[in-house]
Formats: sequence, structure tokens, C-alpha cells
Amino acid sequence: MTGTTQDDYTDRYARRVSGMTTSEIRALFAVASRPEVVSLAGGSPYIAALPLDAVGEMMQKLAAQQGTTSLQYGIGQGTVELRERICEVMALSGITNASPDDVVVTVGGQQAIDLLARLFLDPGDVVLAEGPTYVGALGVFQAAQAQVHHVAMDADGLIPEALEEAIASLALAGRRVKFLYTIPTYQNPAGVTLSEERRERVLDICERAGLLVVEDDPYGMLSFEGEAPLPLRARRRDGVFYCSTFSKTFAPGLRVGWILAPHAVREKLVMASEANILCPSAFAQGAVTQYLTTMPWQEQIKVYREVYRERRDALLSALTDLMPAGTTWTRPAGGLFVWATLPEGLDSKAMMPRAIAARVAYVPGTGFYADGTGRGNMRLNFSFSAPDRLREGVRRLAGVMEQDLAMRAVFGGSAAISSQRRRGPAAGDTPGPDLA
Amino acid sequence: MTGTTQDDYTDRYARRVSGMTTSEIRALFAVASRPEVVSLAGGSPYIAALPLDAVGEMMQKLAAQQGTTSLQYGIGQGTVELRERICEVMALSGITNASPDDVVVTVGGQQAIDLLARLFLDPGDVVLAEGPTYVGALGVFQAAQAQVHHVAMDADGLIPEALEEAIASLALAGRRVKFLYTIPTYQNPAGVTLSEERRERVLDICERAGLLVVEDDPYGMLSFEGEAPLPLRARRRDGVFYCSTFSKTFAPGLRVGWILAPHAVREKLVMASEANILCPSAFAQGAVTQYLTTMPWQEQIKVYREVYRERRDALLSALTDLMPAGTTWTRPAGGLFVWATLPEGLDSKAMMPRAIAARVAYVPGTGFYADGTGRGNMRLNFSFSAPDRLREGVRRLAGVMEQDLAMRAVFGGSAAISSQRRRGPAAGDTPGPDLA
Repeated sequence: MTGTTQDDYTDRYARRVSGMTTSEIRALFAVASRPEVVSLAGGSPYIAALPLDAVGEMMQKLAAQQGTTSLQYGIGQGTVELRERICEVMALSGITNASPDDVVVTVGGQQAIDLLARLFLDPGDVVLAEGPTYVGALGVFQAAQAQVHHVAMDADGLIPEALEEAIASLALAGRRVKFLYTIPTYQNPAGVTLSEERRERVLDICERAGLLVVEDDPYGMLSFEGEAPLPLRARRRDGVFYCSTFSKTFAPGLRVGWILAPHAVREKLVMASEANILCPSAFAQGAVTQYLTTMPWQEQIKVYREVYRERRDALLSALTDLMPAGTTWTRPAGGLFVWATLPEGLDSKAMMPRAIAARVAYVPGTGFYADGTGRGNMRLNFSFSAPDRLREGVRRLAGVMEQDLAMRAVFGGSAAISSQRRRGPAAGDTPGPDLA
Repeated sequence: MTGTTQDDYTDRYARRVSGMTTSEIRALFAVASRPEVVSLAGGSPYIAALPLDAVGEMMQKLAAQQGTTSLQYGIGQGTVELRERICEVMALSGITNASPDDVVVTVGGQQAIDLLARLFLDPGDVVLAEGPTYVGALGVFQAAQAQVHHVAMDADGLIPEALEEAIASLALAGRRVKFLYTIPTYQNPAGVTLSEERRERVLDICERAGLLVVEDDPYGMLSFEGEAPLPLRARRRDGVFYCSTFSKTFAPGLRVGWILAPHAVREKLVMASEANILCPSAFAQGAVTQYLTTMPWQEQIKVYREVYRERRDALLSALTDLMPAGTTWTRPAGGLFVWATLPEGLDSKAMMPRAIAARVAYVPGTGFYADGTGRGNMRLNFSFSAPDRLREGVRRLAGVMEQDLAMRAVFGGSAAISSQRRRGPAAGDTPGPDLA
């Protein structure tokens, strides 16, 4: 054995490496996927609801009959067939003026965010994002050496006044803000949705401030209570980058997402993607194209909606029945997540090892903030586990919380635990949604 | 219509965007793939040689029987099953001490290079690379705002003395060189192979200079004349990053490659990949794993070798029979490419439109240099087209060249054409291989 287990490379890393951290969700993956653990962590769709035999037949044909193209290299932007289907999908969400020419196919929604970061972010630039926000987006912005400034939400999503205030204070401080990254619909992790009325206001504020808007919309089709509000991109064409993915409407294992970009930017996005991955998988693109063309995919979305609504209801009921007093949570009208706020003094991050020992997993709120806040919160996923498992998970989680609360009552741990609740500079702006 | 066709975003781009350019190969893709054009451009393997029915059956099972994992999210590093198979594949090339724990699965070979650039390159850093080198690597380094310094090759690959000289002159100039990027075996585009004796010398030189080595080895298994020399990574464990891909040994449409990294660096590579794409496709990984486990993939490699050897021979014969006097070319012992040097005064880039009009495509040599050199060269691919098509392509190409030479004789265009042969600052180091 040589000395390779030590990091002899420290002095050679690029500066951006210092900003890279393992996401808490990723680190939990191994533990949370053990069968005895009820996982309320992760964001995995319920793939077993797919007609796997029919998908298998589709895959067979794609290789056997179209292999010379589906197994070959393709163009960096993605196939025109898939980009046409993507425009049809977006039209169902109300984006009716998209051209396939302005769509760039990506490796899931993650590469979409990353490409936009590559295109727009220099070290030191500021990105505005909801607080809390998608952990994978935080990873992108950190790797880009950008600073994330969180903007508070309430039950109606991003608070326009908080957005205006953030823009004003950053302008005063001489900071360069490049864009607002937002998940307006069935937000991850908060489970809230930006209201109709606020959508126009948020767009107006960004337009006035000369801010681009990156609209991330992976969950918009997974509504439980009527249709989702129109996407921002359906209301405003200029300055809005619309990102989505087939990970939640079909299957994440194919890694197919997309960006709808203003025309002038599209070519640069393709160049950035080519430098990154040369071209997206022709096979995965063919699979999604076939799925959208030959299979009843809109019916399948209804199946997902039904399954997830039932699970959301089961989770919400269990929370109502079992959680200690002082716990609050959001009530999502779609998507995959509930955001819970713990009774004063509990620390979701410190509690994790005890939760895992009690065979339940969640993601501590800190994973969704760039500034260390979120110890009083946790994200609970309801898409992956069956209703009775969800209830059992909440039962275990409530047990751990009750124990922590009892310890705190006995030892008066309030001060000790509070001191762990590190507050970053933007803490005042980021209470997180706290909506029973 | 709004003003989106103009680029209103110019003042918001990150600085790295100024370095992004469309690769000449990508730009040619649409034209070169028209059926009437004989494409000597591109680097596409001959997928029709695969047993597509059997692959189809494999894909069917992967979705129908393993869909709940193959269509689901996975971990950022890639599945342990595939990483174990990858270690077996590397062992066949002589890398016998690799641990699956040190393998990171990537989106083809391209993401492998890009991840290493993210990890090691700050703006202004220097990368050493063969001149000419892989166009996709140049795209990565340019996007990373690094400077590529080319090192000359001859028939035995990279010239150690030229490497030493480059390192010394860059040190004198106070430049920070981060690594040598090299394709030692069946080099793209030059078609030459670093000799046994030089492999040790190149490793010694890099080790002495404290330079990391990024060894890109997509073609090592595609040998026509005995086995390839041992990879650099088989000779030296520390400081060597070994990158490869299944694009040439199985199928590029799945986009599955890998990096074997020193242990200490592996975790940072995983973090960088997670920020980029979250996780590689579970379905594509499952397909490669199944292919390596259940199908006679080594026999298939022999099929590819036979097909490509026959095509190489057809291309070389056609060049000998048809090319104008003064043209020279390399004689690859494996891989996909021949590198041709044109008679004095011809310009491969300027000639392209006339070649396309004559229904033949190639890649001008300029695509493979960061400094504008290469107008006297072109890359010819022999893996994709059948022998008679290759001969027809060379016939058309020779016709265009004869015409250009005749024009030059009549109009004395020597001066005019020479002035187009722009020479970058490193021109003295980068004559390119010129080996009949």
C-alpha cells in the first residue's frame, strides 16, 4: 500500500473545491435505504406504480429496432423528437409558446441548474433562493463559489416584500445578484406553492431589478387539489429559464431533464453541456420519447397523483395524531414533501443518530440552507413509503422527539441545545415556513 | 415576438463563457450525417456490429425485472456492481490493483475530464496536452479558463524531451501547471501510441515536476496488432487519474464512463459529480453491468477489432492509391483515427465547404489545437463507414485537394493560403505528427 489514503492533493485543488460539501441527503442514502428503516428522507418516486412490463417491452424495441441510433452518439442539444414532445408536455402546464429549438435536454434537473450556474455565476456572485431550498441547487451554487441569499416564505410561498428587501440590501452592499432560483410550485422542501397573485409580483420585482429568474418545476404535474398555478414562464417569456425533469413524472433512473431558455442563450447552454457531457444519452432520450408517444403517460400521472395524495393524507393524519405538542408542519397541495418545525429546543441534526437507531430517517432542515439555519426543521417525504409505513415512521420519530423533550425537561438542556442552533448572517430573513 | 433572438444576456454571463466555442466537430455533425456524404468526420463506433436483438432482450429484463432499482435514483459514485465489473475490465488492460471504492462512474469519458477540470483547474492554470489532442478535452479546459500548452508527438507518441522543455519554460514563466492530459494509446486524433520505453520516462518527468497525469484511455482495447502497451496507471499508482468509457467497447448512446482516482481524491470527485448530475443513470449502469455479466462482450471486442482493422487497411490503401503527392499520414495500430498532413499550401479548414460540396466530410486539424494551428492537417475516421465507402470518401477528398492544388499552381495562391495558416504562440512546440 502506498500513501494514497492521505490527501496529497490538497495544494493542487482548484479554489472551488473548498466550497464542496457532501449533501446530508446523500450521506443518509446508504442508511436510509436499509429495509428496516422507514425512510422519510430522500425524494424517490414510487417506481413500482409504473407498468414495468410495458416499459420493458418498450426498452426492448428501442434497442433491437432503433439501436443504431439509440445506442449511438447524438447532438448536444438533445434529439428534436424529444424536444418536440417536451414542448407538448410544457403546453399541458400552460407554456404554449415554447419552440423545440429553445429546449436543451439535460442529465436530469440537476444538470439543468448546473449549466445555468456555469453560464451565469462567477465566484462571489449572489443567487437569491427560497429559504429553505433544494439541496442539490445549493450544491451547485457552492461549487460555483456563489453566495446564496435566502428569501423567506410563508404559506403562499416566497414573500414578495422579503424579495424586495433582499434585493435592496444586496444592492446597498454592492453585491452582484445574478438570478432568483425558485421552485414556485409544491416547493422542495417546504411543500408550499407561490400563490397566483404573488407570481405576477415576483416577476415584476425581478424584472424591475434586472434579475433573471430560474424557475425549477419538477413537481408541477403532481397536484392533489386541482391544477397547479400557471408557471412563471407561461406568464413571462423574457428573462425566465424554465427547468424541469422526467424524474418525477416518469423515472429518475433515466436522468432526463430539460431547460427552456431564451433563444439567445440556448446556444451557449448547448456549448456548456457539450463541454460537460458531450451529449445526453440517446437511449434515455429515446426511452422518454417512446414513453410519451406510445404509452398512456397522462393516465400514469393520475396514478402517481392518487398514490401520493393518499400518502400525503396518511402522513398528515399521523403527524396530527402522534407528534408532540409544539410541532407544526406544512400541508402541500402537491409534490413529495412536508416541512416540519420542531418544538422549541429540539435539534433535528443532533437528533439524527437517535432517529436512525429508532429505525426512521428524515433530512434535517440544515441541508436546505446555505447558512446553517434549519436545525429546528426537518423534511419528510411521503412519495416512497406506503401509508402504514409512513404512520409507523412518524410513530418512531415522535418517540425520539418525546424522549429528547423529556431529557430537555429533566436536564434543562434548553441553553445547550439553543447554542447549537447556529444562526448565519441571513437568519433574520429565513424563518422557514412554519404553518400548521 | 419579443426581442429574445438578440442576446440581451451578454452583460450577465460568467467570465468563463467567453472561452466557450462550438467545436468544429459538433458543428459538422448535421452535415456529415446526411446519407449522401461520406463521413470521415466524427468518431462513432459501428453499432450495427452489436447483437442488437440480444441487447434488446437485456434491456427488456432490466426494466421489467429490476425496474424498481434500474429506473430509480442511485448513489453519486455509481453502483458497486458496475464498479466491480469496471475493475475487472481494467484488470484485462493490466491495471490489477484497482479497488471499486476508487472508481467513480461518469456520464461518458467527457464528464470524467470535466470533473477533473472542476477539481483541479483555476482560471489561468496551465494544462499540458499532446498537440493535437481530443477536441472535447479542449472544450473542457477552455470552459475552465485554463490555458492548454501543447507538447509535440512523433510516431512514438509524446516526445519526452518536448515535455521536459515545456515544463521548464512554463516554470521559468512562473505559470502553474496542474496536470498532463494524455491519450497514450491509439491517440485521438493522431493515431499514434506512446512507446513502452517512453511511458516510464513520461511518468518520471511528471513525477519529478510534481505534475498529475490524467490518462485518457478510451481506445486501448481496440488494438489491431497485438495488445496495447500497459496503461500508465498500471505502472504508477500515485498521481495518475485513469479515465475510460464504454462508448467504444459497447455503446456511446448509454453515456457510461469512469475515473479511477487516487483514494484521497475520489470523495471530492463524487461531490463534484453530485453537484453536476446528482447521480449517473441507474438504467445505463444496469445495462452495462448486464452486458458485461451476461453477454460475450470480449468476443464483441474482437468483432470490433476485426471490423476496424479491415477499415483502417481500406483507408490506408485508399490514401496510398489516391492522395496527391506530398500528403502524409499516420498508420494507427488501433483505435479509430488517421491523422493526415496535407501538401504544403493546402488549408484543411478553408477546404471544408468544397469537400462538403463534393460529399465528403472530415475534421480540420485546427479543431484539435487550442492555439489555431492545424490548418495543414485533418483527422480521418475509419470506424463508421464500410471499406468501399471509405475509398469513395478518399477519392472525393483527393479530387478536392487536386483542385485546390491546381488553383494554387495557376494563381500562385501560396502566399495567400500561407497567410491563413495562423500560428499561435506555441507553434514551435506543435508540429503535429507527420509520419507517412
